[in-house]
Amino acid sequence: MKDLDSLRVAIAEFARERDWDQFHSPKNLAMALSVEVAELLEHFQWLTEDEARELDAETLARVADEIADVQIYLLRIADKLGVDVLDACTHKLEKNAEKYPVVKAKGTARKYTDL
Amino acid sequence: MKDLDSLRVAIAEFARERDWDQFHSPKNLAMALSVEVAELLEHFQWLTEDEARELDAETLARVADEIADVQIYLLRIADKLGVDVLDACTHKLEKNAEKYPVVKAKGTARKYTDL
Amino acid sequence: MKDLDSLRVAIAEFARERDWDQFHSPKNLAMALSVEVAELLEHFQWLTEDEARELDAETLARVADEIADVQIYLLRIADKLGVDVLDACTHKLEKNAEKYPVVKAKGTARKYTDL
Amino acid sequence: MKDLDSLRVAIAEFARERDWDQFHSPKNLAMALSVEVAELLEHFQWLTEDEARELDAETLARVADEIADVQIYLLRIADKLGVDVLDACTHKLEKNAEKYPVVKAKGTARKYTDL
Repeated sequence: MKDLDSLRVAIAEFARERDWDQFHSPKNLAMALSVEVAELLEHFQWLTEDEARELDAETLARVADEIADVQIYLLRIADKLGVDVLDACTHKLEKNAEKYPVVKAKGTARKYTDL
Repeated sequence: MKDLDSLRVAIAEFARERDWDQFHSPKNLAMALSVEVAELLEHFQWLTEDEARELDAETLARVADEIADVQIYLLRIADKLGVDVLDACTHKLEKNAEKYPVVKAKGTARKYTDL
Repeated sequence: MKDLDSLRVAIAEFARERDWDQFHSPKNLAMALSVEVAELLEHFQWLTEDEARELDAETLARVADEIADVQIYLLRIADKLGVDVLDACTHKLEKNAEKYPVVKAKGTARKYTDL
Repeated sequence: MKDLDSLRVAIAEFARERDWDQFHSPKNLAMALSVEVAELLEHFQWLTEDEARELDAETLARVADEIADVQIYLLRIADKLGVDVLDACTHKLEKNAEKYPVVKAKGTARKYTDL
C-alpha cells in the first residue's frame, strides 16, 4: 500500500467482497480493535523492558502482524464513522502541544506522559 | 500531516523535545496503546449498535480524538520496533486474503470475521 | 474452592511451585489481566446483544474458562499488592451508592451507568 | 461483604434499584470489564517493574478501587451468564495443573507462564 487512504479503500473492498459489512458496526469494530491490541500486548506481558527492546526475528514478525491488525481495524472504524485519521492526528498533536509545552530543563520530564 | 511517515517523524520529535524517550519502551507503549483503545471503547459500551452508528457531533469529536491517540501510539511502538506499518498491513492483508477467500455465495458469510 | 481466600492461597501456591513469582510483578500481572479480559471480549465481538445472551453450551464453557482466568489474575495482582478484594469491593460499592443515588422515577435511568 | 456470593447479590440489587439491567447485557458488560481493566493498567504504564511494586498510599488506594471495579463487573457478567465464578476457577486451576505440571528442576521455569 502506498498510503493510508489506499489502505482504507483496500480494507473496505476486502470486507465488501466477503459480505462483512453486516458485522462491522462501530461498536463491534471497537471491540475487535481492543482484542487485536491485547494480542499485541500479549507478546510483551512476561518480558522485561530490555527483552522487549530486543525481540528475536520470529517474535518481531508476529508483533508486526499484530500491529497491522490494529492499524487495519483502526482505519476500518474511522472509515465507518467518517473520521479522517491523519486530520484527527494533526488536531490531537496540536492539542497535546498546548497541554504539554516543551520544558527547557530536561530533567523535569513529566512522569506520566500523554504522548 | 500529509502522510503516515510525516506523522511518525512529528511524533518522534514531540517525544524527543519532552525527554519522553526514556518512558517509551515497546512494553510501556503496548500498555499505553491498550489504555487508549479502552478510552475509545468506553464511548460505545452502553450504546446499542444503532446508537453507535449515529453519534452526536460532540461524541464524534471525542471519538476522533481517541482514534488519533490510538494511531499515535501505534506509530510510536512500530517506530521503536523498526516496523513499517504500511508494509506490515500490505503483508497482513495478503495473508488474510489467503485465509478468507471470497466466497461466491454471499449468504455464507462467516460468522466470526477476522478482517 | 469454598471461598475467595482459599482461591487466593491456591493460586499463590500454584505459582510458587512453578517458580513463577519472578514473572508476577504487579505491572506484568496487570498486562496479563488485560490479555485475559480481551479473550473474554473476543467471544462477544461479532454477536448481537441478543445472541450474546443465548450462548450455546460449548461457547458458554469457554467463556466460563475466560471468566476464571480473569478472576485468577485479578486475585493474583491484588495479593501481590496487599489488597483485600472483598474489602475493596465493599468500599467501592459504598462510593458508587453515593455517586449514583437511587432515582425514584425509574424512567430517568442514567444512560452511562458506572455500576 | 463477607463472601463472593453476598457481593454478587448486592451488585444485582444495586443495578436493579437503578434500572440498569437494561444496559447490562453480557456483550456490554464484557466491554465495561475491558474498560475497567484498562483503568487499572493505566496506573502501571509508565512505571518500572520496581516502582510498580512500591506504590505510594494514594496510588494504591486508587488501584484498589480499580481492582474492585473489575471484580464487580466480572461478577456481574458471570451472574448474567449463569456462571459460578468459584466453580469456574476450580475447574480452570485443575486444567492449568495438567497443562503445566510442576517441574522439579526449578531453573527451567517456563518463560511464558499461563498462570
